[in-house]
Amino acid sequence: MLVAGNGVDPAWLPDEALRALGSRRVRVRGDGALVDTVRDEVTYACAQFGGAQVNDDGVCDLLLSLDKAGDEGPDGFTLERAGGRTTVTAADPAGLLYGYFEVVRLGEAAFTDAPSRTHRPALALRMLNHWDNVAVHPVMGQVERGYAGGSIFWEDGRARGDLARVRAYARLLAACGINALSVNNVNVHEAEAHLLTDRIGEVAAITCELRAYGIRTHLSVSFAAPLVLGGLDTADPLDEGVRAWWRAAVDQVYETIPDFGGFVVKADSEGQPGPFAYGRSHADGANLLADALAPHGGTVHWRAFVYDHRQDWRDRSTDRARAAYDHFAPLDGQFRDNAVLQVKHGPMDFQVREPVSPVIGAMPRTRVAVELQVTQEYTGQQRHVCALAPMWSEVLRFRPAGDQGPEVGALADDLVAVSNVGDDPYWTGHPLAQFNLYAFGRLAWQPDAAPAPILGEWTELTFTPDRTTDPERLRAGLRDVLAGSWATYEKYTAPLGVGFMVQPGHHYGPSVDGYEYSPWGTYHFADRDGVGVDRSRATGTGYAAQYAKPWSETYETPDTCPDELLLFFHHVPYEHVPRSGKTVIQHIYDTHFEGVEEAEAARQVWTSLADLVSPARHARVTERYEEQVRCAREWRDQVNSYFLRKSGVPDQKGRHIH
Amino acid sequence: MLVAGNGVDPAWLPDEALRALGSRRVRVRGDGALVDTVRDEVTYACAQFGGAQVNDDGVCDLLLSLDKAGDEGPDGFTLERAGGRTTVTAADPAGLLYGYFEVVRLGEAAFTDAPSRTHRPALALRMLNHWDNVAVHPVMGQVERGYAGGSIFWEDGRARGDLARVRAYARLLAACGINALSVNNVNVHEAEAHLLTDRIGEVAAITCELRAYGIRTHLSVSFAAPLVLGGLDTADPLDEGVRAWWRAAVDQVYETIPDFGGFVVKADSEGQPGPFAYGRSHADGANLLADALAPHGGTVHWRAFVYDHRQDWRDRSTDRARAAYDHFAPLDGQFRDNAVLQVKHGPMDFQVREPVSPVIGAMPRTRVAVELQVTQEYTGQQRHVCALAPMWSEVLRFRPAGDQGPEVGALADDLVAVSNVGDDPYWTGHPLAQFNLYAFGRLAWQPDAAPAPILGEWTELTFTPDRTTDPERLRAGLRDVLAGSWATYEKYTAPLGVGFMVQPGHHYGPSVDGYEYSPWGTYHFADRDGVGVDRSRATGTGYAAQYAKPWSETYETPDTCPDELLLFFHHVPYEHVPRSGKTVIQHIYDTHFEGVEEAEAARQVWTSLADLVSPARHARVTERYEEQVRCAREWRDQVNSYFLRKSGVPDQKGRHIH
Repeated sequence: MLVAGNGVDPAWLPDEALRALGSRRVRVRGDGALVDTVRDEVTYACAQFGGAQVNDDGVCDLLLSLDKAGDEGPDGFTLERAGGRTTVTAADPAGLLYGYFEVVRLGEAAFTDAPSRTHRPALALRMLNHWDNVAVHPVMGQVERGYAGGSIFWEDGRARGDLARVRAYARLLAACGINALSVNNVNVHEAEAHLLTDRIGEVAAITCELRAYGIRTHLSVSFAAPLVLGGLDTADPLDEGVRAWWRAAVDQVYETIPDFGGFVVKADSEGQPGPFAYGRSHADGANLLADALAPHGGTVHWRAFVYDHRQDWRDRSTDRARAAYDHFAPLDGQFRDNAVLQVKHGPMDFQVREPVSPVIGAMPRTRVAVELQVTQEYTGQQRHVCALAPMWSEVLRFRPAGDQGPEVGALADDLVAVSNVGDDPYWTGHPLAQFNLYAFGRLAWQPDAAPAPILGEWTELTFTPDRTTDPERLRAGLRDVLAGSWATYEKYTAPLGVGFMVQPGHHYGPSVDGYEYSPWGTYHFADRDGVGVDRSRATGTGYAAQYAKPWSETYETPDTCPDELLLFFHHVPYEHVPRSGKTVIQHIYDTHFEGVEEAEAARQVWTSLADLVSPARHARVTERYEEQVRCAREWRDQVNSYFLRKSGVPDQKGRHIH
Repeated sequence: MLVAGNGVDPAWLPDEALRALGSRRVRVRGDGALVDTVRDEVTYACAQFGGAQVNDDGVCDLLLSLDKAGDEGPDGFTLERAGGRTTVTAADPAGLLYGYFEVVRLGEAAFTDAPSRTHRPALALRMLNHWDNVAVHPVMGQVERGYAGGSIFWEDGRARGDLARVRAYARLLAACGINALSVNNVNVHEAEAHLLTDRIGEVAAITCELRAYGIRTHLSVSFAAPLVLGGLDTADPLDEGVRAWWRAAVDQVYETIPDFGGFVVKADSEGQPGPFAYGRSHADGANLLADALAPHGGTVHWRAFVYDHRQDWRDRSTDRARAAYDHFAPLDGQFRDNAVLQVKHGPMDFQVREPVSPVIGAMPRTRVAVELQVTQEYTGQQRHVCALAPMWSEVLRFRPAGDQGPEVGALADDLVAVSNVGDDPYWTGHPLAQFNLYAFGRLAWQPDAAPAPILGEWTELTFTPDRTTDPERLRAGLRDVLAGSWATYEKYTAPLGVGFMVQPGHHYGPSVDGYEYSPWGTYHFADRDGVGVDRSRATGTGYAAQYAKPWSETYETPDTCPDELLLFFHHVPYEHVPRSGKTVIQHIYDTHFEGVEEAEAARQVWTSLADLVSPARHARVTERYEEQVRCAREWRDQVNSYFLRKSGVPDQKGRHIH
């Protein structure tokens, strides 16, 4: 079963994308499960387009060859074009699979002018976290922060009986380079806790489907499992009974799932249990699980998202942005080799604009995973087009130690993201949100890749069947609606690095003061004179000083701080003139008018593609654009009205603000 | 079964309150079900305290006598003290029951110096609406706007099997004069719609319990019932098929419940179906049901809570406050005699302070019910002490046509309230919230009664068992914590008639801009210069002109408008000086500091009563005071901070505002 079944969108693997190789003579050489997967792929492709899978002694146009003596390393492959034949060689069966999908991606070019080179992923682990609940949560639903229907793994309180879609999903993920996946929400509720022990069989069933495409399965577990599941009276990480319990639990898991990947843990975070209850450090907590996993080659991903979510908004000295660094930087060097500190890319929580987390550069002796959010919690919830690759690319190319230092993509050991996939026919609700998932995989493989070519790749693959009439107009149209969509979204929502001006709870749509007097540590401090958070060392919370030079100095003063982060780092008067030369208040007005205009223009471009895109997909996106434009206007009007009422400064251009 | 059972609080009918009559010789004369109820009451009381029920020829201290030739009228009774004997006479069995409870209320005084007089209720129908759902609603829960646990009627999707608590509840209601009750939410969802037809048996079971204490049962129905239940393709009130369907449905109801009270209908309101869909008026809609009910003596209560809940906040000309009058005043005279227009007491929605609805004085040819909200949706949700009798009393004594005209209590035909009762052991969550239920019943009986004596009555009854050590200190303490609690709540929440500064959705706790940019029509329009809604005729929405003189003139200008409604009717600068002589902004600061101080002082008074009140009740109230004081401080700090940030005007008294 290679395709997802009736009515499910093929995403970036429509059959048509297999035409180039499927119409040729292909030879697959090697043994093992993943080589068999490649063989099945080839068989399928050739059956569609009249090509043939040839035997070891036959003449072929494409040779996919496992060579265990090769030097491509894990997941790597070499692609060569010579003597009228294209050859993919890999030392690792997974590499052969990735090489196969590289050939798919290249299409005809694979058989004409593909440059010879060896491809190796920059990051060993490229993981998706699913925030899927097994039992529907009364507030958060089946998928926490999910905007694409129910879970593809879980239904009616248990693992789905028919996992064909999981297989098809694994295929899509392999095709963009993802090799690890956690199957349940990091907020581990009652039912989900049992996946670790008596319900591990359900996880094993899912694992079978993922394994076929080289994806290892991970599990989110509760730090309180020894209490909740084991009946112990403590979960103290230094208690010998607790350590024994975890060892036994992990042994059991590996007995059922020999290639199990490991655990993801949200501890002492937003109400989840953790080591603080026992006066232990997070290194103690993570090492407890790492020690249990180590004999089996498993890994614990320990999230650094630890902060006081019951903060008093009156207290301006406490700064949530500081929390991860304050908690974790002192622990550098104390984590086991198989304990990975999983750090959100920004210090807050996946806002449309944040600086890069200072934790990432601050833990040289710790294995670090950078966590991105593919699901668009704060970026339009898959009702808005918001292609995030440009944002992620900025993050991954940021150099925490300045121009001479390494990029985030090189500092990170793993790249992790929260998935945007559900049981929606388009996988992601918004058909164009598929691009975010694809781009994440590709950036995890090569973090310094430019976003534009990735968009091109995705467009070519996904719209292969539509590329018949006027491919150039289609390409240009898709580029127009996607390439600048993050910048557009930023314009009509949160200006200059201010975040969290969203409706509390569900986080969709504007509410400028929605989190202003809350316990969540998310404030903008707007008053009649100015707006923003002073995070300087000199007069503010000191967060800017968590960075190494030159950033600690760059961020320290409004004069040197980049405009797009101005209000993240500084509280400034509305009439303050940043480097753009435009006052802050006028910037707010202008960007909000522009953002809506851009959203309207994008909708118009999409409309103009009606004759080029399949009607169902076109209609789905059109319907979402209606909502996007409505919501963008609501953002514009609420934000502009709020700041006009507060500042009293009229729009220089005399536009009507309500 | 007279008492509510194990662990359930006796509220204002502790056995001890029956001592005076239960220790005497009592004769009950007359026949019929309600007379039997009185007889059972007397038997129970005498069994507790050694009195005796005597035969018709025996000597007695108390005679309760049904005399159908009497002139007391429905529910009325005459109480006389003569020749060492107290006599209650009634022409109506229900009157005898109310007379019995008057004797309970009087206690020893009934047998010493009770003045002879005839008691008649001012209002014929004194009704509670239960917003109880049969099936738990995913958002609103079992009881919409309920703060006292689950429903006492419904559980697990159907009528409770054990209805003993309903009987005890009916007894409490009869003891304060309530004689009608609707058993399900005015938002009629899928399951609840069926109560009208195939599930009427469940309603009948409840009816049996309520009937024993003279309470008629009403049902909330969906205007779309002919579509939803009848399979018709219209619910058009002028369609003959629809009319026939309702007649048949009502006939069936009365076959099962011969003394059924009638319907409560929320139509064309917050998404509920109604006659507008068919281009018909609300008189058409109400009369449809009235005509079906008329042959059986039933009544339809048709709610006037009709407004545009999808308003554009940018549109300042639309004013939700105007809606009920605009919709209904033109229909005066068009409603059937058994169609009652049920009008919320204020034009908005049960805020802590609103003017009296102009609809109440504007419909002389329509039977009008005034609707109060006993459940504390916007007044502290039974976590705060907020005794509402003073507010209701102000409403009921308001004279819509000025000093020479009648009071609201005289203009109203019925008084209706949303109940605050659930399956909580104290009935109302907060033990002191019982007073609101009691006071509602008493004011429905006598709308011009002063609140203070009602509080005294309730205190004496409820705390009878506690009145042993130091009754005077207990009385004074309870008066201190209750009598001014509404004023205190108003101070720390919404100043000068501004409403809706609450958290959206659940409506608990402050969010000054929570409803400011919403579609609900609930705005304060605060900007850096001023705050309030201009509802004048001259420059505003014209709402003030919906009143008769003198109120239309009084409310028209800030100079004449009462301070407590200033911001309801006018948008004024923060430095505006109302009649109090204190600027608006200083009023905001001062009331919020005072309100918290008063809440803290009340908590202290309650603490001082620890030796006088039963430990369980004392603990429950103490726990709620913790939350009240915490929340009051949150209100104070958020509101003061919001207006300081916006106005820039410092507190004259130099207190710290965050």
